[in-house]
Amino acid sequence: MGTHIENLKKLVGEVYDLNAASSVLAWDQQVLMPPGGAEGRAAQLATLSSLAHTKFTSNELGEALDAAQGETDKLDADSDEARLVSVVRREYEKQRKVTAEWVAEYSRATSLAHQTWQKAKAESDFGSFAPKLKEIFQLRRDYADFFKPYDHVYDPLLDDFEPGMKAADVQAIFDDLRTHQVALVQAIADAGPPDDSMLHLHYPEADQWAFGEEVVRQFGYDFDRGRQDKSAHPFTTSFGIDDVRITTRFLEDYLPSALFATLHEAGHAMYEQGVKPELARTPLADGSSLAIHESQSRLWENLVGRSWPFWVRFYGRLQEVFPSQLGQVSLDDFYHAVNKVEPSLIRVEADEATYNLHIMLRFELEKALMEDNLPVDDLPTIWNDKMQEYLGITPPDDAKGVLQDVHWSAGLVGYFPTYALGNLVACQWWELIGDAIPDLEKQIEAGQFDELLAWLRTNIHQHGRKFKPTELIERITGEGLSAEPYLRYLRTKFGEIYGLS
Amino acid sequence: MGTHIENLKKLVGEVYDLNAASSVLAWDQQVLMPPGGAEGRAAQLATLSSLAHTKFTSNELGEALDAAQGETDKLDADSDEARLVSVVRREYEKQRKVTAEWVAEYSRATSLAHQTWQKAKAESDFGSFAPKLKEIFQLRRDYADFFKPYDHVYDPLLDDFEPGMKAADVQAIFDDLRTHQVALVQAIADAGPPDDSMLHLHYPEADQWAFGEEVVRQFGYDFDRGRQDKSAHPFTTSFGIDDVRITTRFLEDYLPSALFATLHEAGHAMYEQGVKPELARTPLADGSSLAIHESQSRLWENLVGRSWPFWVRFYGRLQEVFPSQLGQVSLDDFYHAVNKVEPSLIRVEADEATYNLHIMLRFELEKALMEDNLPVDDLPTIWNDKMQEYLGITPPDDAKGVLQDVHWSAGLVGYFPTYALGNLVACQWWELIGDAIPDLEKQIEAGQFDELLAWLRTNIHQHGRKFKPTELIERITGEGLSAEPYLRYLRTKFGEIYGLS
Repeated sequence: MGTHIENLKKLVGEVYDLNAASSVLAWDQQVLMPPGGAEGRAAQLATLSSLAHTKFTSNELGEALDAAQGETDKLDADSDEARLVSVVRREYEKQRKVTAEWVAEYSRATSLAHQTWQKAKAESDFGSFAPKLKEIFQLRRDYADFFKPYDHVYDPLLDDFEPGMKAADVQAIFDDLRTHQVALVQAIADAGPPDDSMLHLHYPEADQWAFGEEVVRQFGYDFDRGRQDKSAHPFTTSFGIDDVRITTRFLEDYLPSALFATLHEAGHAMYEQGVKPELARTPLADGSSLAIHESQSRLWENLVGRSWPFWVRFYGRLQEVFPSQLGQVSLDDFYHAVNKVEPSLIRVEADEATYNLHIMLRFELEKALMEDNLPVDDLPTIWNDKMQEYLGITPPDDAKGVLQDVHWSAGLVGYFPTYALGNLVACQWWELIGDAIPDLEKQIEAGQFDELLAWLRTNIHQHGRKFKPTELIERITGEGLSAEPYLRYLRTKFGEIYGLS
Repeated sequence: MGTHIENLKKLVGEVYDLNAASSVLAWDQQVLMPPGGAEGRAAQLATLSSLAHTKFTSNELGEALDAAQGETDKLDADSDEARLVSVVRREYEKQRKVTAEWVAEYSRATSLAHQTWQKAKAESDFGSFAPKLKEIFQLRRDYADFFKPYDHVYDPLLDDFEPGMKAADVQAIFDDLRTHQVALVQAIADAGPPDDSMLHLHYPEADQWAFGEEVVRQFGYDFDRGRQDKSAHPFTTSFGIDDVRITTRFLEDYLPSALFATLHEAGHAMYEQGVKPELARTPLADGSSLAIHESQSRLWENLVGRSWPFWVRFYGRLQEVFPSQLGQVSLDDFYHAVNKVEPSLIRVEADEATYNLHIMLRFELEKALMEDNLPVDDLPTIWNDKMQEYLGITPPDDAKGVLQDVHWSAGLVGYFPTYALGNLVACQWWELIGDAIPDLEKQIEAGQFDELLAWLRTNIHQHGRKFKPTELIERITGEGLSAEPYLRYLRTKFGEIYGLS
């Protein structure tokens, strides 16, 4: 490797370390930190992010980048080094537009807002959170302004999570999808819901924990390079490809909550654990985009975890763990129960058929908030109106409504659409995997996930962030992002379960 | 406050944040990190410590210091601001002598050595740890060289932990103390040991955990600004005065281990929690020195926690928690058991009368290692010989011998003597507290610790690191460091328990 590339790697390695340290601090904040620590932690995170920003946008790094570029111009454009330079270039040019003051202020504000949100959610008190939320959306508008001119004020934010995607693209996909999805949900509703009362019995936390870990261990999540803890909102975080942690939360009166969260987060974590070691401690040791990331979590949670073959394998084991709750319940009834489609309040617990409607709601609200067309104080009312309009239900309180998600408190605006996009992409992979592994169902029934994981590792994981999402999708599928496989999947699966024509 | 002082505080605040972040990462490393994380964590810690060092020793900080000095020269020499400037000055001049390369290398080496030590200790395999230990002592000699000329190569290291103290001072105190302490231990041995078999019954971890937390909560350790976790070696760490955490470890077949570790670490933690808020996020938000720190932990662990009035208060409660183990054991027998004096292998579990002998052994070995007069490979043999010489026992393996302590693996050389000094200082405070609170014993019997804690807060805690240890001792006692109160305490207490004349 050339001297200049080495030098660039040294510089971005230090930035990587600072960001990894921030991730450890943020993880601790959400998982373990005592309440008193909030203020000090906010200062620490602000200092770290400001330093990382200063270092990453320094003239020194710019010069190192130019020098490295000279070396990589002679290399294969798909080589790790050439891709490193192009990804750093993209990020460098974006971040150079943002001031260090903004970065420190944003870090401080979101760190404190997170604490406020936790309390507000616990007490279902939107009013105490509103001032922080106003501050965050103002900061986010300020951020977008660094990237003027833009087509839409939402675009610069979305681009951070989904490089190349614009609000108008999302709007077009959602507009198209909504009619089909609403029609499907309506047809399912007409067919009548299955009984899922057995899922609402008492399921002790420790047993749920053990069962979930047993499953994701079989999937291939490596606990020597990760761990699971509890947090208010499940998440995955990476401190490097060899320390990728997941969190979950337990509801003792609703079995699917923790279990599917664990499968979901393990899907994210296996992606990060699967990045090839050569990319460690560089900006390429990351996912391609959030939608690609979500395609992994959704694949393991839904396409595997809510599938018939999966439960053929694991239901007997689950019955052993919970004999009094499930001993008398048939596999067929249980499978229908975990695939029950019903409009519900909480996004993370929504079924596969209604999930995207939750996303569309959030996308519209945060777009309006970014446009400054929606006063933050009106948010709970609008939220509840939209819930009624899209899903036919109204939250009883703000904890189960507008306060349910961690994202805005963390400053993550423009993030939600990637969840819906991830659902689409997962189904694109799934059709290809079905072709590549003809006996996939049999393998899943036998608890064998190595061939599936190997396909994901080879095609997606190992590359980390080398390829942009559109590029990755095209390399693998030969086509662009498409909603067709997703709609085919939903219609086939729920058509069968609900006996739709 | 002057503009220049504000500016200095801003700069040292950033360094404080970086160090706090390092502390979080180190805490996680010892408490939770999966094994795969070791290499990435080492890189992160190296980057953070190198950045902190670069920032703290920058010309910018030097100039800010000079400017602030101009402002504080007009202030009371004991004001927070004047003291801040003098402490920063002292540290600045020391750290300017150390290269950033050394700091990064030391951080990397100790971080990896820690992982190696953990494994070596678990497997009682000194050979696998020896190469790391050689590297660390070489790094430590290199460090001392930055401070040439010195009286003794050990001095610069000791000065980091105990400002102003030299190896020769420690040697003189230890030489004096050893004869008295050995004589006392011999007299006690002649009197014959009490029965402590009840301490070696099965004590479930969860109950031990709950009882320990109940006690330190009553002491005044604030769990809203701290938490307790498990680690291989108990320790206290501070991420700021509002997030001060303790760790312990549980032996289910030996009750005192976790309990007294918890009391000990809570003593450290209450010191850090008691620093006045005005000093937050500055280098003054710390203890005066390690010996002063240890005077707090030892005070709560031994002078309170192993005292008769303490057990008058808590023994009934302990019997409730462990009825089958202790229901038939009298308070008197239990009190004698937890104060059993007997040469033993493990320093952290040594009784009050033999403890300092463990320290003297370590002091002599690390002094010889620093002088390069003792090959690392010979360390297990010499350790075992010295154990036989000082305590009359020989470790059955290196896990219970030379590998027992975390310190050297973390690069902490020159640290051990402060434990023994802390024992002495604790007894100096204790005599004064006895004068100030005449009914202290009655208060402890009633479970009232607020007046005791208030005395410590007022006289010691609130000042943080404003005063050097010698200065603090003199301000409070009107005298210097003295071993007399310590010897009086030991002779009185153990004279009573063992019926010595």
